[in-house]
Amino acid sequence: MIDSRSACQQADGRDPTGHLREMFVLPEGIIYLDGNSLGPAPKTSIAAIEHLVEHEWAQGLIRSWNEAGWFQMPTALGDRLGEILGAGKGQTLVCDTTSINLYKVLHAALTLRPDRKIIVSEADSFPTDLYVLEGVVASLPHDYRVKLIGRDARDLDQALDENTAIVLLSHVNYRTGELLDLRAITERAHAVGALVVWDLCHSVGVVPLALDTDGADFAIGCTYKYLNGGPGAPAFLYVAKRHIGQSRQPLQGWWGHAEPFAFDPCFKPDPGIKKFLCGTQPIISMKGVQAALEHCRQSDIDALRSKSLALTDLFMALVDQRCKEFNLMIATPRSQGLRGSQVSIEFAEGYPVVRAMIAQGVIGDFRAPNIMRFGFAPSYIRFVDVWDAVETLRQCLVAKVWQDARYSQKTAVT
Amino acid sequence: MIDSRSACQQADGRDPTGHLREMFVLPEGIIYLDGNSLGPAPKTSIAAIEHLVEHEWAQGLIRSWNEAGWFQMPTALGDRLGEILGAGKGQTLVCDTTSINLYKVLHAALTLRPDRKIIVSEADSFPTDLYVLEGVVASLPHDYRVKLIGRDARDLDQALDENTAIVLLSHVNYRTGELLDLRAITERAHAVGALVVWDLCHSVGVVPLALDTDGADFAIGCTYKYLNGGPGAPAFLYVAKRHIGQSRQPLQGWWGHAEPFAFDPCFKPDPGIKKFLCGTQPIISMKGVQAALEHCRQSDIDALRSKSLALTDLFMALVDQRCKEFNLMIATPRSQGLRGSQVSIEFAEGYPVVRAMIAQGVIGDFRAPNIMRFGFAPSYIRFVDVWDAVETLRQCLVAKVWQDARYSQKTAVT
Repeated sequence: MIDSRSACQQADGRDPTGHLREMFVLPEGIIYLDGNSLGPAPKTSIAAIEHLVEHEWAQGLIRSWNEAGWFQMPTALGDRLGEILGAGKGQTLVCDTTSINLYKVLHAALTLRPDRKIIVSEADSFPTDLYVLEGVVASLPHDYRVKLIGRDARDLDQALDENTAIVLLSHVNYRTGELLDLRAITERAHAVGALVVWDLCHSVGVVPLALDTDGADFAIGCTYKYLNGGPGAPAFLYVAKRHIGQSRQPLQGWWGHAEPFAFDPCFKPDPGIKKFLCGTQPIISMKGVQAALEHCRQSDIDALRSKSLALTDLFMALVDQRCKEFNLMIATPRSQGLRGSQVSIEFAEGYPVVRAMIAQGVIGDFRAPNIMRFGFAPSYIRFVDVWDAVETLRQCLVAKVWQDARYSQKTAVT
Repeated sequence: MIDSRSACQQADGRDPTGHLREMFVLPEGIIYLDGNSLGPAPKTSIAAIEHLVEHEWAQGLIRSWNEAGWFQMPTALGDRLGEILGAGKGQTLVCDTTSINLYKVLHAALTLRPDRKIIVSEADSFPTDLYVLEGVVASLPHDYRVKLIGRDARDLDQALDENTAIVLLSHVNYRTGELLDLRAITERAHAVGALVVWDLCHSVGVVPLALDTDGADFAIGCTYKYLNGGPGAPAFLYVAKRHIGQSRQPLQGWWGHAEPFAFDPCFKPDPGIKKFLCGTQPIISMKGVQAALEHCRQSDIDALRSKSLALTDLFMALVDQRCKEFNLMIATPRSQGLRGSQVSIEFAEGYPVVRAMIAQGVIGDFRAPNIMRFGFAPSYIRFVDVWDAVETLRQCLVAKVWQDARYSQKTAVT
């Protein structure tokens, strides 16, 4: 057990992934524990985006669609991201937004199970996933029923049967940081003939993934959290090769056509993963993803996962030890196999505490009604940052910052 | 009639919009007649994007969602773009892609005319509009029929009746550059109770628009052509205030929720135009649109329209005069009121001619089977550029470049 700031510094000195931190811009005086919401800027991303606007766009103009490979970005970045997902080539795209990609894959998954009318999802899902699901169901002619369950394994077992068309789950819960067993759940769903759609927003980049070998069907996620793709950067989708041929999705646009430049008046979907593309992609934002993925490729995900678990273990231990007189309740599972890379703390005065910590340079975030979230991105967070963050948390608790109007007054915290 | 290069230079000297050219990066030695496909980079856009990545993202991190106004960009840019569309506030959004926005407004328009089952569109539409329409129709439980017409006024009159739910038309045809009378057609559709969805991709920024006073219902378009928002920059949609309340669209995501940060498990659409938002937007690409719109605001659209017509008049006259021995056929209407800002020429050897012109620094584009397209963006194209472009065209024709394998071999021209 690390029990001093100097022990943290020693642990940082031994960290085999410690060199990665240099690759990011990290503002002076900030401990950034919100990379699970928006990752910081990789230095190479800034350079790549500036090169794109100054040269590819301003000098290359229309020619860059071919010469700079802009047209190929959704599939090229998809294949590169596929390496992180454990997905062979031709199954992943980077495009559009997470919500829109979810809309596409839900449609596709439902068309593969036309005789089943039950969709299982979680009551504590990131709400937008449920909004998208509701939108898909409302737009379909059939009488689907959405069954919302808890995150307990027994809930899922009770919900699954031969009427289940699809299961939509978050790999890591956005609120508590709990991690589900992707492989085991996929197997259980398959055992009753159902398909699974995984939301990987809070696991991609920090939890090792092996979608192909785990038998995954569909997945979606964003690139702006632990992948550090930039604010609102285009999202991704994965469709297992065995499902692509039979899949259909209604967002049909020219980028999904088998021959986009034939200007054929009839839609003929691309036979491969490109059938999940629709319109022209935001190239400048895509460039941020491209640079960030190059970055991730150079990282050893197993080493990062070990460090992530050590950081979150340490944070929880220090909170237990140094903040024990306050009524904090750690909502994240203690067991390593059951958590992602964040720690969530329930506390009635969580909102003013998070705001006061931000004012002191420790950036976490808050999720209503009472959750303080702290993300520990292992590629740039150090053990000493964990120590200092707990120290700041403790100071805010001791100072009873909720009595200070500067922090207790509600404004949006993202 | 301008009949010499020096007369062109004199016309440029008198051009009241001539100063706008300085605001763009225009590569040395290039005459850029493809701004109808991808506009050049405004200098302020490059600066704004670089500021965003270096400061708002890299230094501001998550705080910039509020402090740099990222959350408000779709509506704030929408209202600004609304000034160009002739739309009062609260009816326009900048978000997603043109195809996805079309998907949303087609759904919304159809829900407003539940008892009508005919959709009228054009056979010569930009194909993706038809693909999207096909996707919408296929996903709906009702038995819709799509009736494709020509661009003749009589075709429309024959097609419209009390069974017509909506009419989907391009304001300016992408292939020929023909301009339709938005107001008159909207009135004719309304006379039978139908709604009109306008695709403004090839008119916004060069043709004066007055959507509110013309009684428009719905419109969509892109920002990367004459608005110069950057490669694949987010698109826009317009919904007339009177339709927003009753409209529904299936791409439901948290950005369209009445209270996105309440994390409500049930979807409750925003009562205003934000109900047409879905997921998190690509902020870096949005920034390019923001800077470009500031730019457009400073331009006098009536002066630009006059210049655009003078440029296209001159181009056609010079082609007639200087290329008369070749079998060129101008496909764009000669009448000023019937064209946008491009001139299209049908020519059997159009493909090698366009490629040879590009090799000589005059960038236009080609659309199969035989159309050479030249866009004349009045904010940076000069009369002398028109002269020089025709001279280059003439030289390529005289040289019979289609006999040169460098140009005749097919590769993608975008």
